[in-house]
Formats: sequence, C-alpha cells, structure tokens
Amino acid sequence: MNELTILISCPDQVGLVTNITRVLATHQLNIIAMREFVDEANKAFFTRIACTGDFNETAKLKEKLLENLPNGAEVNLIAQKEKQIAVLVTKEYHCLAEILIKNHFKTLGASVQCVIGNYEVLRDFTEKLGVPYFYVDHNGRDKAEFEQELKAIITNFDVDYLVLAKFMRILSADFVQDYAGKIINIHHSFLPAFIGANPYRQAFERGVKIIGATAHFVTDNLDEGPIITQHTSHVDHNFGVKEMVRSGKEVEKKVLLEALELVFEDRVFVSGNKTVVFK
Amino acid sequence: MNELTILISCPDQVGLVTNITRVLATHQLNIIAMREFVDEANKAFFTRIACTGDFNETAKLKEKLLENLPNGAEVNLIAQKEKQIAVLVTKEYHCLAEILIKNHFKTLGASVQCVIGNYEVLRDFTEKLGVPYFYVDHNGRDKAEFEQELKAIITNFDVDYLVLAKFMRILSADFVQDYAGKIINIHHSFLPAFIGANPYRQAFERGVKIIGATAHFVTDNLDEGPIITQHTSHVDHNFGVKEMVRSGKEVEKKVLLEALELVFEDRVFVSGNKTVVFK
Amino acid sequence: MNELTILISCPDQVGLVTNITRVLATHQLNIIAMREFVDEANKAFFTRIACTGDFNETAKLKEKLLENLPNGAEVNLIAQKEKQIAVLVTKEYHCLAEILIKNHFKTLGASVQCVIGNYEVLRDFTEKLGVPYFYVDHNGRDKAEFEQELKAIITNFDVDYLVLAKFMRILSADFVQDYAGKIINIHHSFLPAFIGANPYRQAFERGVKIIGATAHFVTDNLDEGPIITQHTSHVDHNFGVKEMVRSGKEVEKKVLLEALELVFEDRVFVSGNKTVVFK
Amino acid sequence: MNELTILISCPDQVGLVTNITRVLATHQLNIIAMREFVDEANKAFFTRIACTGDFNETAKLKEKLLENLPNGAEVNLIAQKEKQIAVLVTKEYHCLAEILIKNHFKTLGASVQCVIGNYEVLRDFTEKLGVPYFYVDHNGRDKAEFEQELKAIITNFDVDYLVLAKFMRILSADFVQDYAGKIINIHHSFLPAFIGANPYRQAFERGVKIIGATAHFVTDNLDEGPIITQHTSHVDHNFGVKEMVRSGKEVEKKVLLEALELVFEDRVFVSGNKTVVFK
Repeated sequence: MNELTILISCPDQVGLVTNITRVLATHQLNIIAMREFVDEANKAFFTRIACTGDFNETAKLKEKLLENLPNGAEVNLIAQKEKQIAVLVTKEYHCLAEILIKNHFKTLGASVQCVIGNYEVLRDFTEKLGVPYFYVDHNGRDKAEFEQELKAIITNFDVDYLVLAKFMRILSADFVQDYAGKIINIHHSFLPAFIGANPYRQAFERGVKIIGATAHFVTDNLDEGPIITQHTSHVDHNFGVKEMVRSGKEVEKKVLLEALELVFEDRVFVSGNKTVVFK
Repeated sequence: MNELTILISCPDQVGLVTNITRVLATHQLNIIAMREFVDEANKAFFTRIACTGDFNETAKLKEKLLENLPNGAEVNLIAQKEKQIAVLVTKEYHCLAEILIKNHFKTLGASVQCVIGNYEVLRDFTEKLGVPYFYVDHNGRDKAEFEQELKAIITNFDVDYLVLAKFMRILSADFVQDYAGKIINIHHSFLPAFIGANPYRQAFERGVKIIGATAHFVTDNLDEGPIITQHTSHVDHNFGVKEMVRSGKEVEKKVLLEALELVFEDRVFVSGNKTVVFK
Repeated sequence: MNELTILISCPDQVGLVTNITRVLATHQLNIIAMREFVDEANKAFFTRIACTGDFNETAKLKEKLLENLPNGAEVNLIAQKEKQIAVLVTKEYHCLAEILIKNHFKTLGASVQCVIGNYEVLRDFTEKLGVPYFYVDHNGRDKAEFEQELKAIITNFDVDYLVLAKFMRILSADFVQDYAGKIINIHHSFLPAFIGANPYRQAFERGVKIIGATAHFVTDNLDEGPIITQHTSHVDHNFGVKEMVRSGKEVEKKVLLEALELVFEDRVFVSGNKTVVFK
Repeated sequence: MNELTILISCPDQVGLVTNITRVLATHQLNIIAMREFVDEANKAFFTRIACTGDFNETAKLKEKLLENLPNGAEVNLIAQKEKQIAVLVTKEYHCLAEILIKNHFKTLGASVQCVIGNYEVLRDFTEKLGVPYFYVDHNGRDKAEFEQELKAIITNFDVDYLVLAKFMRILSADFVQDYAGKIINIHHSFLPAFIGANPYRQAFERGVKIIGATAHFVTDNLDEGPIITQHTSHVDHNFGVKEMVRSGKEVEKKVLLEALELVFEDRVFVSGNKTVVFK
C-alpha cells in the first residue's frame, strides 16, 4: 500500500466528482483527501486527490480516468517522489540560504541539484552546504549566449523546477517557453504595485505603510505571471529605503518558501493567469 | 433547481466518498463543492457537500445515504434557510452592535429574533435598530430562577443559536445541556491562556506582547468548549489595562463575527472537544 | 492641572529637543510623553509632546517656542477638546455604521455633526442613530453646483475633518483646496495597486492572493494623497469579485477607523506627500 | 563625531526629560532619536537616546547625568560595538541556522563566539559555517556538574548574551543568577498558554486555532521571565501535532530573531517582570 496524488483539470460539467470517485473505487483506491474547485469564469474544473492503494496499473488508471472525463482533460498521477530543483541567484543571500538550510536538513520537500549565479559572491556559502555552484557571467554577452550557458548547466541535471531566488536578470521569452510552468520567481513587492525596478525605493517615495512580496510563476510578461503566494508587513515613517529592504527580505523569504512548499506538494494548478492553490 | 447543503459525520472506513457520491449521482444531484476530513485520532469522517438538483425527496435521500454509511452516521440535509438567533448581552456594546448592524442591513446570514440582557443599558440601542429587547434581572435571584426566565423568553422564538455577545453570567450545566451545540460565546483571551476572570488584567500583569480572543461553543466546562475561531493582536508596554481592553474589543468582535459567519453557513462540525471548520 | 498636546514641525537643526524642553521647563510644564522624528530627506523635524501643567498662558508659550525654533516652524497647542466631523457617503453602509456606532457610544474620539449623502439609502439608518442626514443630488448637475451645495451644508457646522466613508464622487481641486489637510478618504485597495475604478474587479482579474485598503488625506491628485494607514487580508481562488468585496469591507472599516483614531488624537503629521504617525 | 546610545532608568519625577536634555546640550551632544516611557504602576522612568557628538568624556557625562537624576538611577552609555553571544542548542536546527546564517553574512548585529550543545547533531552544520562547537553531555551527570562545564566554556569567550535556541535543558537558579538579564530563550508557545512540556501536543489536544512562540529573558521561574516578543500563526483541524511543530518552527525563529535584533540594538529594558521595548 502506497500513496498517490492525482491531479485532474478539465472543462467543467455535471457529475465529474461522481465519475472520478467511481473509477477510483473500481481500482480499489481509498481517498484520504480530496479538494476540488470550479472556475466559473472559465468553466474549468480542478481536483487534487490523495489516495492509497496498490498502484501497479497507473497507466490503466489514467486511461480509465480520461475515458470518463470530457475532452481536454489533463490527468497527472504523481507517486511520492522528491522534486529536484536548480536555484538561480545574483548577490542576495536571504532566499538562497533559507532554501539551502532546508535542503541540508532534508525539510525542503525537494532536493537542490545546483545553484547558478551571475556573480561569484554566493559560491563559498553554497559549497559549504554541499551544493555545486556554477558561475555564468552576463557581462559583455548578449542574452541568448548567456541563457545558452544557463541551459547547458541545467540540462546536466534532472530538474523539475527552476527557482529564481533573487535572480536579477530578465529571462527571454524563449527561455521561459522552454521551462513553461516550471520557473518560480520571488518579486520584492506586493504585485501589482511597484512593478519593475527598485520597488522599495518606489515604496519609500510613495510613503506606503505596508511592503510586501509575491511569489509567482514566470511567464514572458515580466511580473505578470500567475501569483502563488503574497504577504505584506507594516512599515512606518522611520523606515528609509535601507530599512524597507531589510524588513522586506524577511517577507520575501517567507513568501518564496511558502510557495515552494505548496508547489513541491503538488498543491498548485495554473488556470490562465491565475493559480488554484489547494492548501 | 435549488441548492442543498449535506453534512455527514460517521466512523471512518474505506470507500465513504465513493459511496456518498454514488448515492448523490443516483438522485441526479450535482456536486458544486465538497470538503471532507478524517480525524485520525478518533477514526471519524466528516464531509460537507453543496449540491444542486431537485429536492422533492430529501427524506428518501437521507434514508439512502444512511443505508450506505456505517452505523452511527449522522446525516443533515439543510435547505437554504436563514438561521434565527437570540443574542445575550450584559453591558458592553461592541459585539452586539456589529451583529445588529449586519442584521439591519441583511448581511449577517441570520436573523436576530431578540436581545436579552441582564442590564438595561443596551435596550435603547437595540430597539432603535428594530429588535425586541428583554431585560432579565439576575440580582437577588438564584441561577435556576434567572435561567428559567431566560428560557421562557427564548421559547417564544424559533431560535437556532444563542449568541453570548459579552454576556457575563455563567450558565448552569442544565441550561447548557438544553441548548447543546447551540450556544456560541466570545471569550476575551486567546484560550487557553487567561482562563477565568479579568483576562486583560492578567495579560497586563504578565507583560504579554499579544492579546487575543476566542469564539467557542459553550459546554458545561467553563472556557473549555470547542474553539471555532481565534485571533491575536500586538500590544506593547504603552498599553495599560484600559488600552488592552479597548484594543481587545476590536479583536473580540472580529473573532465572534467570523465564527458566526462560519456557523451560519453550516461550515462547522463539533468533533469531541474540537471543531472541524470547512472554510 | 490639565493636559496639552504640543505639535511642532520645523526645519531640522542641532539642539531642537533641548531648546524645546528648556522652554517647557521654564513654563513649569511636565512632559508625560514625547515623540520626535527627523525626515532626513527633507531636513524636517517633527515632535509631538503631551504635557501637563497650568495653561493660562498658551499664547505666551507658543511665542516663546517660536522664538527658540528656526524660521518656518509651525507650533500647534491643542487643549483636550473633542474633534467635530462631517461624514460623506454614497450607498455602502459598513464604514458609516462603524463611525456612527462609536459616535453613539462616545468612543469615536470625535463627534459626528452630520452625514451627507448623494443617495437617500443611508438616511434612515443615520437618523435612527440620532445624526442629521443631508441629501445632495449629483444627477444632472455640474460638479461646481454639487460641491457648492455640499459646502453650504458643511458651513452650518463647526467641522474639523471631512471623512469620506465610501463617498464615490471625485472632488474638484478647488473643493479639496478649501479643506486642505482636512479630508480623509478610505480607498478600497492597497495603494498604489489598483488605482482608480473597481479595484476588486482588477484584483480578481489579476489573481492576487491579498486584498487591502488605504486611508489617506485627500489631495487634488486622485488616490495620491499622503497615506495614513493600510492593511491587507488574504484571499484565494475561491474568492470571486463578490467575496473580495465582502472581505474587503472588513479591511476598509478597520483601516479607516484606525486612521481616524490616530488623526483625532493628533498623532499624524503630513510631510510632503507622506505622513509621520506617532503611534 | 561618532554615535552613542544612552539608556537611563530611574524613579519617575517631574522634569526628567528636561534635566537629561540639558546635560546633553551642555556636552554639545546632538539628539538624533529619543524614546521615553513612564511605568505608572511602578513609578519608573525609562529613556533611550541616540546621539552624536564627541565622546572623549563619557565618564564625566555619566557622572553629570547621575547628579541630575533621582537616587536609584541607572545610566548606561553604549558606544557602537557589536555584541558577542554564545548559542546553546539541543537537536533542533531552525533557530540556530537562522542565527548562524545572519552571523555568516554579518547581518545579525552580533557575533557568535561559540555554539554549545548537549548533543552532537548540530556540530557538523555549525562548523561548516565557521563557528566553534562544544559538546557538553548531560547524561548521567547532575545539573551542577553539567552547568559547571557550560560555564567553563562560556568563560573562555567574552560574551554579552547567552541565546537558548531550543536548548531543552532547564537551567538552575544559580546558573541563571550568574547571567542575570543576559539569557534569552525561545519558548514554543504563546505564553502564558501551554507552560511546560510538549506545548504543541497540548495545543493539538485543546483544539486551538492559533499557535505561537515567545522570546523572553530567563529568570529562575521557568517560562515566567520578562517577555520580549510574541507572534502567533493560524492552524486548523488539518494540523496534527507534527504539522503544528513544523509551522511553529517558522514562528519560533521569527520571534527569536526579532527579539535578538531588539536586544542587540539596546532597545529593551527589563522592568520588574516585564519589558519596555523601544522599537
């Protein structure tokens, strides 16, 4: 007896839950947790089912589910297997450190295969914690060449997700396309406020009383991808830009790590430009 | 086509979701939202299902569900009908006002039948907002007599829940028994801290940095009933007892109103001394 | 012995605190609380001092303080006197009700002189709670005429602040100028996100995971005035626009009432397009 | 020109702020930030003043301040100097890691001199990050002997504070006395709830909807010392003990690190069994 997570998305219609649970019953599977959601605007149905049973015949199970679902259904059967990730960084350590610490103590829910940075400053720290570090220089090179080198490194590893842990280079549409739905970024503002560069400077100039951060999937529209998690924290007139950055880093790492946990546990669906998150 | 909420609790066993959804399919009901939970410690299963369909035969549906569930199952079929409540108060207005305002503007999700107070101070305000007010004096009377009079008033109304909105008398085990699972109280601390009298004084003396409030079902163990919702808010050394009380009132009304909304939408199960809350 | 609040803002220079406290000592005043802030970017100094003493000679005290402060200093001596306000509304009740309830029970820290609405829907409720209601129709009239009528009503009262409690008309630069620094608005988003119309619809379309509200002073740049308070609350994929609006109303009233409390206690300075808030 | 932080506590009386600021003016010191608080219950006055100036004569300044303050005053002049700390641990890594990461990247506001553990499990990690690790076995030894060895290690370093980062041994009154006001502990509940062992188990049994953590100075009354910071986070029926522990660890590290930042910046006074925290 082992555990299986079943993810299904399809056009909505009457009787989906009944159809799905009947197929599972036929395969002697026991549902231990089930969540579903209907996106009324897009007439789309999403479900996440955790079940136990004998899974010799997952191919047949998937086939049976698809037979009982409308055209356009996507069925994903996920056995308990740790995700593998690559982390991209620039100079700031706070998100990377949170990831590497949990990786070191085996509480990340994923295994960090490598860290890639466009500076050398985080090499020493990364290697201390036993993870290979690759430096890819962006100076004096065009984006295509830079990204070619990134891909060459990533390809050496079997990677489920790329995590941009304060990686300050904008990736091309082509690169993003190659890893569609697999790149997670932390943006240092509560989007859609302060899109673009220097959000804490913008926040300071505007005199806001909250700052925040947003973890999202990366699409080719910068800062416009589906949002996974967001948090804010309070600031006041005593906060200059420096203090906002410092306080913001605590929010950033919290937001990113929450998003990663949800993604690694297969709790996040992308639906158009939004996410459905079964917490 | 109208909407029905189905609440089921029963001993846990394999195949419950499948059994239930099959019965619903047989009755041509369409599931629009479904939540379930297994309390592993108590081997108990809970589900809340919102569905649409033709409900001429709810008696038969209930029978069919019970046939397909283990012994000891409770099945509750709830048509869309506004709850009716009585509110018990003493002298503080903040929770009562929040309830009466939402009642006045029809956003409470329930209808306030009457307010009963052991002082007269809130009569004027209650009556301004069109709700009958009953005064029951507790002075110089024993608890049995006092509670007899409460009951005599409540009996005149068709009431689903009694809401203790800062009602400062302790109810007897007998009274609580008569309204088992139907009395909701707001306690002015984050239980189990500061059980008993004067929690803000206790909080001040202890020098805590947070205060809080707890909404719970009332059982015959004072302050020990199943907790529905809790929140805290920050305080600092500038807060004397008075400031804590003032700030605490904001938390109290928030916590109580959240609990009421959940209860009125049939999202709360009691499981032993805990609640299962399907938000 | 009574209490006085002293507000001072002036260009920053060395020795201000010393100069100020020496003058207070000369007048036999006892400082019971003192807060100060230097806005480094604008080289501006702000202080709020609560003190007790004999205040027969406030004119002389003010003069003495000004003598000991740099050119351009503003000194404000505020005796304990309740603020008076007018509230402007459209159709939504939630912020108005919170204000009128606290006004009724004398816990607002201000006294509501009148409510002015561009619809009649909130008249009945306002009058029940003993406050005069004035209806000013905006249909088929130009803004100048509409605002002329608003002013005609406001002028009848001695009003310290105008509170826009979900007042959905945009005020002209002229009107705003006439009440400079005296108009407080609640905006239904965490500014600067979702400026303009229908922020909850915008939030829904964007798929954000937080919504929020902002209380700010009104300037002639719409939604751009100095921010006093902001809060956010979490939403998820289950929230449609309607649920966001409902949840947002709870944040709006919390944010507005916090801002009002701070303003009514003379804890808020405006510094350029920002506020300094001595909590 | 350099910076000095002045901490003063003394019995409250009229004119203290004036007296203090006059002395500072005489010494040509410029006040850049000043906070004060009067504990009315204990008639005690506290102030924290950050100022700039020429500090050749701190001894004379201290003397002058004491002359102008009531008997029993404590004056503390603190030059900008990084604090030095020792960290005590048992087996859990989450608080230690947060401290060592910030120590490694020089953003802790203190310098970790050593880590002492009553198990060996955290040695490897500690040493990777360049900090000496000392193992002190508690098995089969009485507390006096165990603590003697702790002290022998600590004495080798010049240490301002001992941080108990999930150190699961109870220290004797003697040990605590030797480091009075210098030991900071993280307790895994929102005190005073769930005092003692296994707070998450207690929280689970009680069915609470929030969990929390408390950072406090250690006194010889277990879990009763002056509280510095507290936070809570929400849980629901889906949280077993394991999930509460996991979620609680995030709160614990946030609470402890916030407390340490405040202490390292000399923002925390102890007043009886409470703290005054000038944020």
